[in-house]
Amino acid sequence: MKRYERYAAEIAEMIDKGVLRPGERLPSVRHASTQRRISPATVFEAYYLLEARGLIHARARSGYYVSERLQSRAPQTSRPKQRSAAVAISDLVFDVLGSTRDRNVVPIGSAFPSAALSPLQTLARHLSHGMRALDPKRIVDDLPPGNERLRRQIARRYAIDEMRIDPAEIIVTNGALEALNLCLSAATRPGDTVAVESPTFYAALQALERLSLKAVEIATHPRDGIDLDALETALRRANVKACWLMPNFQNPLGSLMPDDKKQSLVALLAKHEVPLIEDDVYAELYFGPRRPLPAKAFDRKGLVMHCSSFSKCLAPGYRVGWAAAGQFSKQVERMKLMTTLSAAIPSQQALSGYLDQGGYDRHLRKLRRVLAAQRDVAMKQVAEYFPEGTRVTRPEGGYFLWVELPRHIDALELQRQAASRQISIAPGHLFSADGAYTNCIRLNYGHPDDQRIGGALRTIGKLAGDLGSGVSPKGARSA
Amino acid sequence: MKRYERYAAEIAEMIDKGVLRPGERLPSVRHASTQRRISPATVFEAYYLLEARGLIHARARSGYYVSERLQSRAPQTSRPKQRSAAVAISDLVFDVLGSTRDRNVVPIGSAFPSAALSPLQTLARHLSHGMRALDPKRIVDDLPPGNERLRRQIARRYAIDEMRIDPAEIIVTNGALEALNLCLSAATRPGDTVAVESPTFYAALQALERLSLKAVEIATHPRDGIDLDALETALRRANVKACWLMPNFQNPLGSLMPDDKKQSLVALLAKHEVPLIEDDVYAELYFGPRRPLPAKAFDRKGLVMHCSSFSKCLAPGYRVGWAAAGQFSKQVERMKLMTTLSAAIPSQQALSGYLDQGGYDRHLRKLRRVLAAQRDVAMKQVAEYFPEGTRVTRPEGGYFLWVELPRHIDALELQRQAASRQISIAPGHLFSADGAYTNCIRLNYGHPDDQRIGGALRTIGKLAGDLGSGVSPKGARSA
Repeated sequence: MKRYERYAAEIAEMIDKGVLRPGERLPSVRHASTQRRISPATVFEAYYLLEARGLIHARARSGYYVSERLQSRAPQTSRPKQRSAAVAISDLVFDVLGSTRDRNVVPIGSAFPSAALSPLQTLARHLSHGMRALDPKRIVDDLPPGNERLRRQIARRYAIDEMRIDPAEIIVTNGALEALNLCLSAATRPGDTVAVESPTFYAALQALERLSLKAVEIATHPRDGIDLDALETALRRANVKACWLMPNFQNPLGSLMPDDKKQSLVALLAKHEVPLIEDDVYAELYFGPRRPLPAKAFDRKGLVMHCSSFSKCLAPGYRVGWAAAGQFSKQVERMKLMTTLSAAIPSQQALSGYLDQGGYDRHLRKLRRVLAAQRDVAMKQVAEYFPEGTRVTRPEGGYFLWVELPRHIDALELQRQAASRQISIAPGHLFSADGAYTNCIRLNYGHPDDQRIGGALRTIGKLAGDLGSGVSPKGARSA
Repeated sequence: MKRYERYAAEIAEMIDKGVLRPGERLPSVRHASTQRRISPATVFEAYYLLEARGLIHARARSGYYVSERLQSRAPQTSRPKQRSAAVAISDLVFDVLGSTRDRNVVPIGSAFPSAALSPLQTLARHLSHGMRALDPKRIVDDLPPGNERLRRQIARRYAIDEMRIDPAEIIVTNGALEALNLCLSAATRPGDTVAVESPTFYAALQALERLSLKAVEIATHPRDGIDLDALETALRRANVKACWLMPNFQNPLGSLMPDDKKQSLVALLAKHEVPLIEDDVYAELYFGPRRPLPAKAFDRKGLVMHCSSFSKCLAPGYRVGWAAAGQFSKQVERMKLMTTLSAAIPSQQALSGYLDQGGYDRHLRKLRRVLAAQRDVAMKQVAEYFPEGTRVTRPEGGYFLWVELPRHIDALELQRQAASRQISIAPGHLFSADGAYTNCIRLNYGHPDDQRIGGALRTIGKLAGDLGSGVSPKGARSA
């Protein structure tokens, strides 16, 4: 990090913590320069950076001021119906996602960050090297639970945060999605009810639908996650057999459950003997001082089935994830063996080689910095372009903004209009089986290399404004 | 192929076709040399080769004679109970297979051929090259149905045999196992009955068990596959919802269904509107003059869900297979997207690069020659070492022998005794949910590079002989 970036980060933190409040004036450039013993140019660069991120703004002949905080316009805790119901959402998900596969589309609706953020060339070297060095006999040995060295490396990364996960508990899978699906299969029988956040990641809803499970959607706060009181009510009333949650940087809300709340969550579920399927794929993409712990860290009964992967933070397309499935480990391993046998050996070899070589943490630091800056840019653009009354989350990690548009705007119509302009967005309809969030959209800010994003957000904001004011896309009033 | 190998192959074919019969004398070396215009040394080398394969034998001062054909001691058509029943075999399969993972074990019970037979170094080159050359944006494009170039290449290989499979119908999967499981899910609901061969590959039984399906095991001939009359009876009586069959080189029998019989099979199933899940992973490992057609070649209604992979014939551990699922294609593609998203991109890139470069057919020709020779060696060893009354198949492709031991020998006990001597075998118990085949074993002859195989077959034969005569492994009579 350069000196001006460090100084900008300090100010951003003061704004974050409320030390500097909206409307307050920042120190003058001369004052800051003298006091901090840095050059005026450095102060200017820091202020420009903060301005670009929308955190401060200049007033003519007066200096820099802290901007109105977007967080004050964040969405409220969701209020789902909290009844257990069958899920039928898959067709809609496929319809909407199918239209965004064209590579000419601006990928704001995508679930993936830009692959250009990954060290693809370095990984490619490890692919070839790892497979050349491999004893042919090992190819069969790496059947589930997976490459032993890789499982030790994964366990070692948890150990840095003083989490003890036994490598023997870790099962390597085809990405986190397979891990989550296997865990869900292991913990439920058709007809069971599963508690999920509201809104929740559509893949969770699809998994429930595929396995003929019912969903009960639980109220969730956009900053600190699922409402434990609401969850407890559901546990008492709805005969919940499992939970599928994302305590860290939830998709789509971006919410981050504080560690003590995670501890309460795990205790609550332990009391009811209900397993937790924990989707933790964004944990490494934190913008705060350290990696948030997974709920698994507080698990004493082996009820937490922790799932993660390298797909979002390192190696898209390599399809390597894992499950640490506690008391369900043996069952998950067997199911893996029966359905897809093992994750690809070249992918496992390459990742193991890469992790060994030690570039991963450096890569992650850079990735977090890029995503944090891009979050600020995207929030500024939403504040600037989107209609009055829009609310937006301010996630502390990951790469999604959750945007609540004025109530009468239909996100599915917005998605269609955006698609006709070669822009994808993810309408709120995808994130609930209950027909909620019809005025919400999820925006992906994980493509900072895509020069078209700014213009696309402007277009979406304009389309939303027109929909809100009853103006049809061609400018004529709708009936 | 060298000249003596060519000559040996000609004689082997004459023996195969009955032109030369067991007990008949071969032409003298001088006679053959004059007639064929090849050197006596070449004739000798051909005869030595045939002798090593157990097809002919020398009698002192008399010349070479065609050996008693092992095929005359082949097992008969199986006679399963043909009733529809729930499946509970998975635990046994895991118990038995779990004990064979140690790499110090002689892998005669393995389901895989030796990885040393694969062009691993060449594939490793294509891994790195393919991923370096890849446009990062493509990484997301290769979600299901999979890498487009690879799907075209797969379709092109079918086109050589004048089979038209539309690349758009092909879905790339994590090996054939995932393809088969997805197809089975698409074609059935829990409680349905599925017809399988008897004996059948244990992975099929496990898949049925996992999805709460019932199996009806159909009589199957060790040479030409499932008995169509028996299948028709089951179709009429058992409310069969799908079939899972291996027309080409069935595992474990090695049976090869003649093409006209495949046509009748497909017509029969079409009449009953029953989909066929076709496991075709061994088709490229034929020893005859050309690749046998899949049942899919005769499909007019889109009822054949054809599954195959590169795992057995080219790239073990790369986990790349495919399904051409006919009218179920869209459903299979969606299920793939929901459960494991996609096959690993590096593996797909590497295979596509390798197929393009044109080394595949050369590799396959060599592999077939090696396996065919090894089949003969293994059959000779079984004939030599195994107890009187043993019957064995003579497969025309693949790498499994199915051995029927005298009736009172328990293959599970034999497996345990072999395991204690660091030798794995696959006991017949694994290949039926009905408790049949308790005196049968499947032997893998796909490890010609493993010098321990001969000695291990001798040990197994000895153990079987002792079990048959009531001698306990330590030489004392059992109670």
